[in-house]
Amino acid sequence: MTAASPDTVSGLLREIADVGTDPVRGGYSRPVHSSAETELREWFVAQASRRGLDVETDRNGIVWAWHAPGGRRDGAIVTGSHLDSVPGGGAYDGPLGVASALVAFDRLAERADLHGAADRPRAIAVFPEEEGSRFGVACLGSRLLAGAIDPDRARALTDADGETFADVTARAGLDPAGLGPDPDALARIDTFVELHVEQGRGLVDLDRPIAVASSILGHGRWRVSVEGEGNHAGSTLMADRRDPMVAAARLVVRVRELASRVPDARATVGRLLPTPGGTNVIASRVDLWLDVRHPDDATTNGLVEEIRQAALLCAAEEGCTARMTEESLSPTVDFDARLRDDLAAALDAPVLSTGAGHDAGVLKDHVRTAMLFVRNPTGVSHSPAEDVEDADAEAGAEALAVALASLLVD
Amino acid sequence: MTAASPDTVSGLLREIADVGTDPVRGGYSRPVHSSAETELREWFVAQASRRGLDVETDRNGIVWAWHAPGGRRDGAIVTGSHLDSVPGGGAYDGPLGVASALVAFDRLAERADLHGAADRPRAIAVFPEEEGSRFGVACLGSRLLAGAIDPDRARALTDADGETFADVTARAGLDPAGLGPDPDALARIDTFVELHVEQGRGLVDLDRPIAVASSILGHGRWRVSVEGEGNHAGSTLMADRRDPMVAAARLVVRVRELASRVPDARATVGRLLPTPGGTNVIASRVDLWLDVRHPDDATTNGLVEEIRQAALLCAAEEGCTARMTEESLSPTVDFDARLRDDLAAALDAPVLSTGAGHDAGVLKDHVRTAMLFVRNPTGVSHSPAEDVEDADAEAGAEALAVALASLLVD
Repeated sequence: MTAASPDTVSGLLREIADVGTDPVRGGYSRPVHSSAETELREWFVAQASRRGLDVETDRNGIVWAWHAPGGRRDGAIVTGSHLDSVPGGGAYDGPLGVASALVAFDRLAERADLHGAADRPRAIAVFPEEEGSRFGVACLGSRLLAGAIDPDRARALTDADGETFADVTARAGLDPAGLGPDPDALARIDTFVELHVEQGRGLVDLDRPIAVASSILGHGRWRVSVEGEGNHAGSTLMADRRDPMVAAARLVVRVRELASRVPDARATVGRLLPTPGGTNVIASRVDLWLDVRHPDDATTNGLVEEIRQAALLCAAEEGCTARMTEESLSPTVDFDARLRDDLAAALDAPVLSTGAGHDAGVLKDHVRTAMLFVRNPTGVSHSPAEDVEDADAEAGAEALAVALASLLVD
Repeated sequence: MTAASPDTVSGLLREIADVGTDPVRGGYSRPVHSSAETELREWFVAQASRRGLDVETDRNGIVWAWHAPGGRRDGAIVTGSHLDSVPGGGAYDGPLGVASALVAFDRLAERADLHGAADRPRAIAVFPEEEGSRFGVACLGSRLLAGAIDPDRARALTDADGETFADVTARAGLDPAGLGPDPDALARIDTFVELHVEQGRGLVDLDRPIAVASSILGHGRWRVSVEGEGNHAGSTLMADRRDPMVAAARLVVRVRELASRVPDARATVGRLLPTPGGTNVIASRVDLWLDVRHPDDATTNGLVEEIRQAALLCAAEEGCTARMTEESLSPTVDFDARLRDDLAAALDAPVLSTGAGHDAGVLKDHVRTAMLFVRNPTGVSHSPAEDVEDADAEAGAEALAVALASLLVD
């Protein structure tokens, strides 16, 4: 592609609209290192290569596409997002940021006026397993890069089929021994800007297309494993049962009750897996995953502790046992205030916080970081109902180009 | 194999001990037409062929292995069971009856004294999808044979991946258009005897190895689909949610409460599937499967109606909707009383009822039918903990040979 080719964000997203569609859930299921996510990465590599960017996959599986004048990569301005999805997710969560980055780089290449004579290194990064939908830990790629997860723990994470992240990583052509902190890669980044579809109705309510992020709500994930006694659903009397499904159900109800008492808290059980999971089988074990978020980290901890006590009690009432283990915990992130205000002024955009986690939130402790949000008319995300209008998508790419240009001359 | 080869039930089961093991759940997962179940069928065909039996697969996917003297198949004495399993099931539920049938046929071939000069047709039948663990309807093969399910409904049944029974059947080499009632095949059967591992502690408590069945508890399966609004777990306030997982959890708790009030009733939710099923996603829909059993069919119906009302209420409280659809319903089955008493006398065996469903229960309305149970030291079934001691397995095959011989001279 030459700089004259008029690629648009919506045109790029149309190219991948058939990849990873989910006939059962609707929307897209693109778990990390699945054939769908692999196809998306290959698409990104092809798009970046057509633009003359130097593409490399680092040892944590992050794909970088560099504009590196004179081979320099230090002090780089980086943008990007992810291509993996939640099960049955929307078309924009992740890919919108990647497609917008490609179009913004086109604008920077076409319009030197945007950033004057400055020819500073810049890159697009695509992070793996942002959703944590396969191995349970959200932002796994950026956490590994930043040293925010022990590589041994990451290697041992398992997916629903019992495969380890190490094995899946190796099959994807990476050396599992190489996973882990990459301070050199981090040190090259001066500023990271992630563009993302808004996962709420903030911009709809303000009637504006683009916002700058102020903060990400603190959030964590815990796995609760309830163990009872598996048996035949027909031959086991009610009084003889130690049924972990009943204990888990009581806990789900308690989670709703406990979270509803705490202003601004959100607590969700969206994934629950009975083992063995047969209609005519009393489960021997039920695993459920708890997602808890609150602006105040101490409040999150207090709520999680109440839920932990409830899990033990619900299990004990049914003659079961329960274990609750933390899978990830991220404090509330406040993005760089000066950059936030500069971008809001440059883009004439409102400032909004978000309840959703992002790789930008992980990187924030290491590099100057900002986020842009693009209006989502439904306000719904992690669902096929997620939406972005074409005009807003193009406005987002333009805003990202302006933001990157302002940083390139900074 | 010649008649002199000393095959044993435990030896035969050892041959298939590695097929379909489930590394995640433990035990075996051998859903119908999976590679594991297909391998078990091929093993059965090889075993039957080695014994000189004529093997055929009928248009419903039931495998028949015939001893058909002079080509005659009318008035046949038939035994058999199934090779599919629940997810994470035991080694004996199904395969014990098939392996015991092979050994019993060896005994009949070796020891003409068992049945005198009578050389009556006999066959071993292997039924597909007895557990209903892939397509939801238990005893699907025998129901099709007996006309106890509409073939159009059977063809349209879907598995967890959204594949129809028609498509999976076609891939297995059968013509989906041929599925349905087979009165000629039924008319050839004089008597059907199924041997099965006991799925309870009746024989353990009696300290006896073998029992004759009196009855199968009436049972049914219903699917409850709760629909709400899928959304992001972080950006959606508790007060704004219509979360079908919370509604489903309340229903699971109600099912336990309602069933516990009805003496002898059993009601179980062992399978529950949130859609899309992501940790950071409020589910848009939760499907759960309800298994209800009671000796009195009117009581079953009454309990199911109470649960249906509870489902509507639990859904409405959460701003969700619920639909409850029957997947199968089988009245309580009392086996042929005279045959039951004759076998109990011939085998000096106690008589026991069971809460578990079987193909024999479906066939009972069409042919004379009996069942034998073999002691299970743990009393647990549909679980890797299911067990049979080798000596009891061999005693079971001997009892089956004696029972079949008594029918062959009947």
